[in-house]
Amino acid sequence: MRGVILQSPGDVRVADRPDPKIEQPTDAIIRLSATCVCGSDLWPYRGAEDHGPMVPMGHEYVGVVEEVGNEVTTIKPGQFVVGSFWACDNTCEICRAGYQAYCVNRTLMGMIGTQAELARIPLADGTLVATPGTPDAELIPSLLAASDVLGTGWFAAVAAEAGPGKTVAVVGDGAVGLLGVLAAKQLGAERIIAMSRHESRQQLAREFGATDIVTERGDEGVARVKELTGGLGAHSVIEAVGTQQSIQQAIGATRPGGHLGFVGYTFDAAIPGAELFNAGIHVHGGPAPVRRFLPELIDLIWNRQIDPGKVFDLHLPLEDAAEGYRAMDERRAIKTLLKP
Amino acid sequence: MRGVILQSPGDVRVADRPDPKIEQPTDAIIRLSATCVCGSDLWPYRGAEDHGPMVPMGHEYVGVVEEVGNEVTTIKPGQFVVGSFWACDNTCEICRAGYQAYCVNRTLMGMIGTQAELARIPLADGTLVATPGTPDAELIPSLLAASDVLGTGWFAAVAAEAGPGKTVAVVGDGAVGLLGVLAAKQLGAERIIAMSRHESRQQLAREFGATDIVTERGDEGVARVKELTGGLGAHSVIEAVGTQQSIQQAIGATRPGGHLGFVGYTFDAAIPGAELFNAGIHVHGGPAPVRRFLPELIDLIWNRQIDPGKVFDLHLPLEDAAEGYRAMDERRAIKTLLKP
Repeated sequence: MRGVILQSPGDVRVADRPDPKIEQPTDAIIRLSATCVCGSDLWPYRGAEDHGPMVPMGHEYVGVVEEVGNEVTTIKPGQFVVGSFWACDNTCEICRAGYQAYCVNRTLMGMIGTQAELARIPLADGTLVATPGTPDAELIPSLLAASDVLGTGWFAAVAAEAGPGKTVAVVGDGAVGLLGVLAAKQLGAERIIAMSRHESRQQLAREFGATDIVTERGDEGVARVKELTGGLGAHSVIEAVGTQQSIQQAIGATRPGGHLGFVGYTFDAAIPGAELFNAGIHVHGGPAPVRRFLPELIDLIWNRQIDPGKVFDLHLPLEDAAEGYRAMDERRAIKTLLKP
Repeated sequence: MRGVILQSPGDVRVADRPDPKIEQPTDAIIRLSATCVCGSDLWPYRGAEDHGPMVPMGHEYVGVVEEVGNEVTTIKPGQFVVGSFWACDNTCEICRAGYQAYCVNRTLMGMIGTQAELARIPLADGTLVATPGTPDAELIPSLLAASDVLGTGWFAAVAAEAGPGKTVAVVGDGAVGLLGVLAAKQLGAERIIAMSRHESRQQLAREFGATDIVTERGDEGVARVKELTGGLGAHSVIEAVGTQQSIQQAIGATRPGGHLGFVGYTFDAAIPGAELFNAGIHVHGGPAPVRRFLPELIDLIWNRQIDPGKVFDLHLPLEDAAEGYRAMDERRAIKTLLKP
């Protein structure tokens, strides 16, 4: 099969890779209908994480089940399925508490690489959720979004306790931040402040439900959010970047007793203890337990109540993956969908 | 009046200070029945915080109201009262949300200094809670504990979502940690792991409700808590120290999706972003909004359901404050009560 590999930082290629096989009796093999490039794929692309040469890439996926192992009982060949970037059994104590990204038997899909024609999905019964039928082509981008970027934005909004009567500030106007706006809106937030200085992203934020735009960053951004919230800060803040500045901006923008949901991967930031202590806020985040939300998200998409697929402003054939990475790296695209 | 001042690091004295007067119409003046030395008083005592010379000390207090300003309506002269270390109006939006330590009109009692015969209490109607009557002398240490150390341990347990069915680990065996154990027990926790290597403190922890003692610290302490919790970590962790090691120990001991309540003042620690991200835990803490809990805590003490005053293992006259500080600094005493 054809699949994306990272040859070395900056050098993404589509190469022949061996077709995946059932390795465990709980595995499934799916044929991908669509996959995409994640903001976190840019870390190794930019050389910030050393993964060695020729690494298979990608962890977002939707597709049709081709084959299942002999212990798979609920997932069947022919079903259209969505899964998360952590494979999970969905039965352990941690999964049952809703933290499937920390399943005691978890496997990181990024190690398998789903930017490909086929992929092996471990723990298929736990990991995959079948859609009610074969989706119309127009629904595929949104279902793909549920696999990570929507699920992650949704988790951030839930972690930030976005809801009725709340003012939510969103730090980060990437795909996750934008879908954090959409999630906050769906969860009933009264006011949603998108922090963005890019006009096209501001526009999508407004489409997804943002009521206010703040273009300032850092301390000025914090001051502006406070100005908009009677000097107190937002009840709920979503952090979807992960840099030192964005985290401190998010902490500063949250009112005492408020909730900060953070999903930007904090690769090398450190949180000053005294700053967090004095803020008096709730903080929750990390890799999103997307599996918790998949049934609900698929339902919202299937019934055309949300259209998260709009974050894919660049659709390319899988063979053009290199251009898809470049466009995101140069911020020409919010998010690239790849069609095998 | 007589009152404690910090002349310079390590040099605590009891000196003549001017009697406090009503300065604002919302003030009250109280005559202290008891006050005490806080772990946080040891920061300036040890020179870790530069407060300049001759600083009045203390922020914990119970006593009898002597006089009130002409806008004070609910607090009356003659009442026995308990207040928190942050004076608050208890009416602003932040107070109403239960975060009185962040009241928009807050005043830090430590700037006033309650290790004295008399103290001015700002925003008396908001700050003070009257007991149902004049307490028996034996209740005074416990009521004094409610002013900060019990309220702080209680907040930590609430922030850690201690409750029925939960395993709670407590990092820190100072007075706050020990009262975190008491709070977790009162909140219905199933199992309480106290992390302590001091025999007398272990004994008090057990008296307050600890079911297990872990003497290891750092990574070994984390490993031991995981061993006791099926490899997963505790549902709830209370952090009551504030050092770099204790915070990382607390993060490590919390299971994914679990709750960490932190009240140890993180003077100079930094939380590695990637460590917090990968932990997937809830974190909440900071200066405790003790005022939120005072009515409930006074009730529990008044009805002799809890005896938090046991943390005062050294009772001294106010004039012997210097010895009270020394005993805590050298860890000969858990907590010193001073009797004016």
